Amino acid sequence: MSELLFYLDIFGTIVFALSGALMAGRYKLDPFGVVVLASVTAVGGGTIRDLILQTPVFWVEKPYYLYVILITSLLTIIFVRQPKRIPKRFLLIADALGLALFAVVGAQKSLALGAPMPVAIVLGTVTGVAGGMIRDVLCNVIPMILRQEIYALAAMIGGGLFAVLSYFGWSENNAIIVSVTAALLLRLAAIYWRVSLPAFQIVEKENNP
Amino acid sequence: MSELLFYLDIFGTIVFALSGALMAGRYKLDPFGVVVLASVTAVGGGTIRDLILQTPVFWVEKPYYLYVILITSLLTIIFVRQPKRIPKRFLLIADALGLALFAVVGAQKSLALGAPMPVAIVLGTVTGVAGGMIRDVLCNVIPMILRQEIYALAAMIGGGLFAVLSYFGWSENNAIIVSVTAALLLRLAAIYWRVSLPAFQIVEKENNP
Amino acid sequence: MSELLFYLDIFGTIVFALSGALMAGRYKLDPFGVVVLASVTAVGGGTIRDLILQTPVFWVEKPYYLYVILITSLLTIIFVRQPKRIPKRFLLIADALGLALFAVVGAQKSLALGAPMPVAIVLGTVTGVAGGMIRDVLCNVIPMILRQEIYALAAMIGGGLFAVLSYFGWSENNAIIVSVTAALLLRLAAIYWRVSLPAFQIVEKENNP
Repeated sequence: MSELLFYLDIFGTIVFALSGALMAGRYKLDPFGVVVLASVTAVGGGTIRDLILQTPVFWVEKPYYLYVILITSLLTIIFVRQPKRIPKRFLLIADALGLALFAVVGAQKSLALGAPMPVAIVLGTVTGVAGGMIRDVLCNVIPMILRQEIYALAAMIGGGLFAVLSYFGWSENNAIIVSVTAALLLRLAAIYWRVSLPAFQIVEKENNP
Repeated sequence: MSELLFYLDIFGTIVFALSGALMAGRYKLDPFGVVVLASVTAVGGGTIRDLILQTPVFWVEKPYYLYVILITSLLTIIFVRQPKRIPKRFLLIADALGLALFAVVGAQKSLALGAPMPVAIVLGTVTGVAGGMIRDVLCNVIPMILRQEIYALAAMIGGGLFAVLSYFGWSENNAIIVSVTAALLLRLAAIYWRVSLPAFQIVEKENNP
Repeated sequence: MSELLFYLDIFGTIVFALSGALMAGRYKLDPFGVVVLASVTAVGGGTIRDLILQTPVFWVEKPYYLYVILITSLLTIIFVRQPKRIPKRFLLIADALGLALFAVVGAQKSLALGAPMPVAIVLGTVTGVAGGMIRDVLCNVIPMILRQEIYALAAMIGGGLFAVLSYFGWSENNAIIVSVTAALLLRLAAIYWRVSLPAFQIVEKENNP
C-alpha cells in the first residue's frame, strides 16, 4: 500500500467514525454506544469487502485502526459538544468524504488482490457505502443511498474511475487523486445544490384476486 | 453444476434483481440506486451462504452475474415504466420465485460442498430469504418473513425437500424440479388466498420494579 | 474449549434463541418464522465473529447448535403461551444473559485463535451484541445498543475483563465466572434501576446554502 493510500485510508476511517459519532449524538447515546456506532460505520464497508475477497480483515491484522476510531470518538464527544449547535450538514459532508475515499481504496485493494474490474468496482462501492448503510439501518433511518441525491453514482464513479485509469496505465497516486476528487465533488455538489438524477418511479395498484 | 441448476440460478438472480428494482421504484431511486438495490437483493443471500461455507463468493468468481443484474435493472427501468401502473403483486410474485429457486440452489450447493443436512437446509433458507430481507431492511420495511403469510416455511420446504429427496437417491434434476415447485406453489397459494399458519402470539405486561 | 465454556455457550444460545422467539411472539409470527428469528438472534453474533476470524463457522461444524435453537423455539411456543401474559422484562433479561455470556465466549475464542487483545475485545462485543442487533433491525425496532441504558459498556466489560484477567494469568474458569458476572450484573442493574451513563447529545441546526 502506497503512502498516499495509507493516509487516505486512515483519513476515511476518521471521517466515517466522525459521521457515526455525530449520528450517535443525535440519538443521545452514551460514550460506549458512540464508540460502537463510530466503529461500525468506519469498518463496516472494509470488513464486508475483505470477507468477500477472503483476505484477512484489515483491522484484525492492523488493530491501530481501532485506536484511530476510539480517539476520533472521544475527540468528537469532547469538541463537538462545545459549540452546542453544529450545522446539520456536518454529518453529510463527513459521510461524503468517507464515501469518496473508501470507494477508491476498496477498488484499489480489490484490483491489487486480483479481482476482475467489474468485481473491483462493486467492491469499491461496497466499501464506500456499506458502513454508512449499517449506521443508518441501526438508527432506523432510510440509508442515504435510498434518498434521491446522487450517492450510489458517486461511489461507482470513485471506484470505476480508479479502475479505468489504472487500466490505462496511470500511476496509482494520480489515479487515486483524480478519482477521489471526482467522486467527492460530485457528491458535494449534489448535497449543496440538492441535485438528483431523474428517478425511476413506479405506481402500483392493489390487485385483489 | 448441472445445466438445469445453472439456468435456475440465473433465473433466480433475474427475478430477485427485478424485485429489488421494483422496490427501488417505490422509493423513487435514481438509476444507480436501482442497480444497487437490485444487486443487494439478488446476491445478498448467496453471498452470505458462500461466506459461511467459506467457499469463494459466486459473483467474484463469475462476474457475469453482475451483468445479469445490470441488464435486469435497466430493462425494469425501461419497460416497467411504460404501463405506468403495475399490479402491487408483481414484487411479491418475483420475490416468491426467487425464494423458491434460491432455497433449492442454496441447499444443493451446501450439500455438494459437504455440509451436513441440517446445515444445508439452514443455508438454503438463508440463500432464499436473506437477499429479500436486506432489501426490506434497507427500505425500512418489515421483512416479508416477519409477516404472517407462509414464507419461512416455503423456504425451508424448498431446501429441506431437496435435501431429503437427494438423500433418498433421486436424480438431482428431479429433486430440484419437485422441491422448487413445492416451495413456489406453497408461497403463491399463501399470497393468493392470504393463508397463514396459526401465529405464536404473546401478550406482555409492563412489570415495573 | 473447557467444559464450563461449553455449557455457557449452549446456555447463551438458549437465552438468545428465547429472546428471539419472544420478539417473534410480539410480531405474531408463525412457528417457522419464530424458528428463523430465534436462529438469527442466537447465531448472528458468533457467525460474524467466526467470519471475521476466518475460522469455520461454529454451527456449520457443530450442527447441534441448530437443534438447541429448534427445541428452545418449540418449548417457548408451547410454554410461554400458557400463562397468556408474561412480564415485558422477560425479553430484556434473556437478552442481558446472552449478552454477558457471548461477550466473554467471543473474547475467549478470539484470544484462543491468536487475536491481539483489542481485537478480542471488539470481537467479544460483536459476539454479544450482533445477534440482538439483527433481531431488532429485522423487527424494525431501534436496537437496544442505541438506547440509553448501559449496553455497549456491559458487553465491553465482559470481553475486556476476561482478556485482562487472562493476561494476568487467571485460570480460564475463574476469569470467565468473574467477567460474565460483572457484565451481567452491570446490565441487569441498568435495566432494573434504569441507569444510564451521561449521554453525548448534539443539537443540529439546518444550514441552508
